[in-house]
Amino acid sequence: MEPVDNRAVVDLLGALAYAELTAFDRLAEDARLAPTLAGRAALARMAAAEIAHHSRLTDRIADLGIDPATAMAPFVSALDAFHNSTRPSTWLEGLVKAYVGDGLAADFYREIAAFLPPADRALVEEVLDDTGHSDFAVREVRAAVSANRKLVGRLSLWARRLVGEAMSESQAVIAEHDRLAELIVAGTGDLGGVAQLIDRITSAHTDRMKTLGLNP
Amino acid sequence: MEPVDNRAVVDLLGALAYAELTAFDRLAEDARLAPTLAGRAALARMAAAEIAHHSRLTDRIADLGIDPATAMAPFVSALDAFHNSTRPSTWLEGLVKAYVGDGLAADFYREIAAFLPPADRALVEEVLDDTGHSDFAVREVRAAVSANRKLVGRLSLWARRLVGEAMSESQAVIAEHDRLAELIVAGTGDLGGVAQLIDRITSAHTDRMKTLGLNP
Repeated sequence: MEPVDNRAVVDLLGALAYAELTAFDRLAEDARLAPTLAGRAALARMAAAEIAHHSRLTDRIADLGIDPATAMAPFVSALDAFHNSTRPSTWLEGLVKAYVGDGLAADFYREIAAFLPPADRALVEEVLDDTGHSDFAVREVRAAVSANRKLVGRLSLWARRLVGEAMSESQAVIAEHDRLAELIVAGTGDLGGVAQLIDRITSAHTDRMKTLGLNP
Repeated sequence: MEPVDNRAVVDLLGALAYAELTAFDRLAEDARLAPTLAGRAALARMAAAEIAHHSRLTDRIADLGIDPATAMAPFVSALDAFHNSTRPSTWLEGLVKAYVGDGLAADFYREIAAFLPPADRALVEEVLDDTGHSDFAVREVRAAVSANRKLVGRLSLWARRLVGEAMSESQAVIAEHDRLAELIVAGTGDLGGVAQLIDRITSAHTDRMKTLGLNP
């Protein structure tokens, strides 16, 4: 395997840093949909964890001699577009997005991070580590869908929309960033490797849907 | 000094816990007004610090055998009313609110905490400790007002409105909560002591306004 282009590392860290910043925003916004003060605080804590990760990533980008804002800039419009097109209208939609959407994104970043030099790989794995807050989302959604079976279809459809939007935005990002595309192809070996990567991500997504009591 | 009514402790911790939760919300919302990604992240980190404090307080309330949501409930409407009537319309108004408003509230809680048992007093002082993030607000506001002198009058007026709203809401809260009122009067000794308390808070507020380059 060839040595990784340092700019590809910055691209990945920049994308992830902006993803964490938008995740903060969105979780903070969705917290206001919470039916209880405890739920509101739980989502606020998830948001706080994201911004701590954001800071770790921007510190590393700065260490690599790049201005973090510059590294994040190329990913702002795609990530904003994703969040604008998938704004939850209910508390449960917000939780499904937090669990299913973030899970999918985390798997994707983790797969690419496997091709990075060890220190950066370790950093990405650390910031993607589940902070245990997702247990809260699972508990709330499971309880809601078992109390009201009508929600299963509605929330499953919502999750499929999230995945569709996420796929189309990430394809657009990769298409515009040759270094990221090269990193993925070089890392997986060939197109067969890319297909396996997609299979792994899809299968983990299916598991998450089942965990929530939804139809994959 | 008579031993403190445990319910007054819970009242104070409950008020402060809800204050921290709303502070999170408001800082997270104002972060979106930031002109730069770095500014947005700075405000998001301030928000994250508030929710960490919130969790410390709700843990303590639970230790005292009270449901945190029950302890916070009496203060929800006054604090929500304060924030709804003082929604910043610009990034700088948001920073002034974060620095002047939170500073004033922190002084007030700290004064009352002086009358609490040592462990609770220590907890309140810990969660009110400046996390260093306010340096950011000071830097940004000072730079803006020295670049544009017209902002001095406008932001000074805004700060006076914040103080007016904060005073009227806190008077309403104390008037409705006999135990808090008794705690303050018993703690300060007499009405002269209350006047001195108000003097100290006012004087610290004046210093903060000067620090920002605004007219007290």
